[in-house]
Amino acid sequence: MKTLLLAIDLAGTFVFALSGALAAVERRLDVFGVLVLAFAAGTFGGIARDLLIGAIPPASISDWRYLAASLVAGVVTWFRHSTVNRWRTSVLVFDAVGLAFFCVSGAQKAIAFGLGPVMAAVFGMLTGIGGGVTRDLLLVEVPTVLRADLYAVAALAGAATVVIGSTLRIPSPVAMVAGFILCLGLRLMAIRRGWRLPIARPSGTADARMQTEEDEPRHRPPR
Amino acid sequence: MKTLLLAIDLAGTFVFALSGALAAVERRLDVFGVLVLAFAAGTFGGIARDLLIGAIPPASISDWRYLAASLVAGVVTWFRHSTVNRWRTSVLVFDAVGLAFFCVSGAQKAIAFGLGPVMAAVFGMLTGIGGGVTRDLLLVEVPTVLRADLYAVAALAGAATVVIGSTLRIPSPVAMVAGFILCLGLRLMAIRRGWRLPIARPSGTADARMQTEEDEPRHRPPR
Amino acid sequence: MKTLLLAIDLAGTFVFALSGALAAVERRLDVFGVLVLAFAAGTFGGIARDLLIGAIPPASISDWRYLAASLVAGVVTWFRHSTVNRWRTSVLVFDAVGLAFFCVSGAQKAIAFGLGPVMAAVFGMLTGIGGGVTRDLLLVEVPTVLRADLYAVAALAGAATVVIGSTLRIPSPVAMVAGFILCLGLRLMAIRRGWRLPIARPSGTADARMQTEEDEPRHRPPR
Repeated sequence: MKTLLLAIDLAGTFVFALSGALAAVERRLDVFGVLVLAFAAGTFGGIARDLLIGAIPPASISDWRYLAASLVAGVVTWFRHSTVNRWRTSVLVFDAVGLAFFCVSGAQKAIAFGLGPVMAAVFGMLTGIGGGVTRDLLLVEVPTVLRADLYAVAALAGAATVVIGSTLRIPSPVAMVAGFILCLGLRLMAIRRGWRLPIARPSGTADARMQTEEDEPRHRPPR
Repeated sequence: MKTLLLAIDLAGTFVFALSGALAAVERRLDVFGVLVLAFAAGTFGGIARDLLIGAIPPASISDWRYLAASLVAGVVTWFRHSTVNRWRTSVLVFDAVGLAFFCVSGAQKAIAFGLGPVMAAVFGMLTGIGGGVTRDLLLVEVPTVLRADLYAVAALAGAATVVIGSTLRIPSPVAMVAGFILCLGLRLMAIRRGWRLPIARPSGTADARMQTEEDEPRHRPPR
Repeated sequence: MKTLLLAIDLAGTFVFALSGALAAVERRLDVFGVLVLAFAAGTFGGIARDLLIGAIPPASISDWRYLAASLVAGVVTWFRHSTVNRWRTSVLVFDAVGLAFFCVSGAQKAIAFGLGPVMAAVFGMLTGIGGGVTRDLLLVEVPTVLRADLYAVAALAGAATVVIGSTLRIPSPVAMVAGFILCLGLRLMAIRRGWRLPIARPSGTADARMQTEEDEPRHRPPR
């Protein structure tokens, strides 16, 4: 069981690190920037999870294999970047696979640390989205999770599957595989078919916020 | 006392979540993005506080009521967004109320965990500004606290009131109400009257930074 | 030994706080924004290190001297900002000195908490870059570390020197001074000579990412 969790965590770290490194290459960062972004995208979801449930020091920090998985992903991306053009949607796909790995392992670890079912599902979701949020914030972009098609919903569905399986005493590996497939399937279908959640129309106009900002005395000359 | 702190924390979570959800609606995020932003804005100030004082797992994670308060705020905002236009300054007002709640509860919790008076006041301020900073960073904006009129000062004043009250052995609820009123009053007056702190004039020209950047050999062609 | 670490930590806090405050002044934040940015840039690297190795509450929070060092740096910057123009590259230089202090103290503290040599070196690097990353993210800029010349490499070299010294049983102060000089020297040479790491060419065209984004069904009209 512990080995399974570790393997899933490392696989998730690897694919999230790939997504981070690819985004870094596309933004023309240097080789170390690519490695840093690979490490950040690969491990920060798990680090946040471990900090919050009190598993200190976090596995990603105390175990060198997480670092190694991130660096391998960064180096592979660096030397294969000529194929990036052919992988146009690959950041999205790797991101989806990492999301599926992490939502499942996050939920399982939260259950092992004694969190209740609702919070364990939320935790799995947070673990899944943490790496991608870090990657996007470091590149100063609005995180994918906040605008993408069915992103957090897919993570929540995968995590909830693990939690429900645990409640029904289904063997963990079965529930985890089911959660992984559900999350990945939902996310890939969302990317392919453009499924998305409804968007609010703020007061009928697109520039409500801009008007709001102009109402504030922000542009008043300094004294 | 414990019940009072919980009630204040939940109220602060609710109004900060409202501010996060409103900002998300104005930026046209989808329904799940709105809920995520509500949760992040509502709870990250308290999570940061709890992580730093060693209250692990943080209350906002282990207690489902924080999640519930955030989600209710998100759902309410989602279905009432047609009234957003009438609430043009409402993000600012909810943000101010949340700031007042959190600076007070943050200072009180820091005292309970044995921090000294100066750090307890700083902690209250950090708790207050954490949620708003998270909200703004997730939307890729310079945090309000760094540019707004008397924002952190108001939070510090509220937190300091609680700390001074505790030092003078005034009953906590009295000191907390006083701190709440002081913080909220300062912030609302600052919004309404455009009070703001002085701004430095960097070397007399507005574009000093831009010149600095051009001095660096950043645009050198890559090897 | 403990006093030496504290002195180095405080010195690093002070110079990073200077870099944060200078960046804030250049971005025309108000006086409190300058102080907040000074505190964030000065202490967040150390706070992240302490959270991750389980030293809770972090030294920067429980010890008022870190706050004092940050505030002094902020106030000094505030009143000396007329000289900012003459210090055009000073943000970079202070940042480099802070980086050198923190990578050394971070590695040393990680060793003291029992981390293995590889992770201690990575930890020193993370401690060094944490403050600058926080400063840049709060100002909504892509962190310097991800695009600057030999930034993280310099931090890693300094931290690795401390770790190697510890493995070889060289007295800590000697190894720390050597690591400090190595990191600072590398970084300053990189700034002066424009040394930089190679940058990947994503698929031969500069706008691969832009095309990627247009391939996604992001602009599909909401239902």
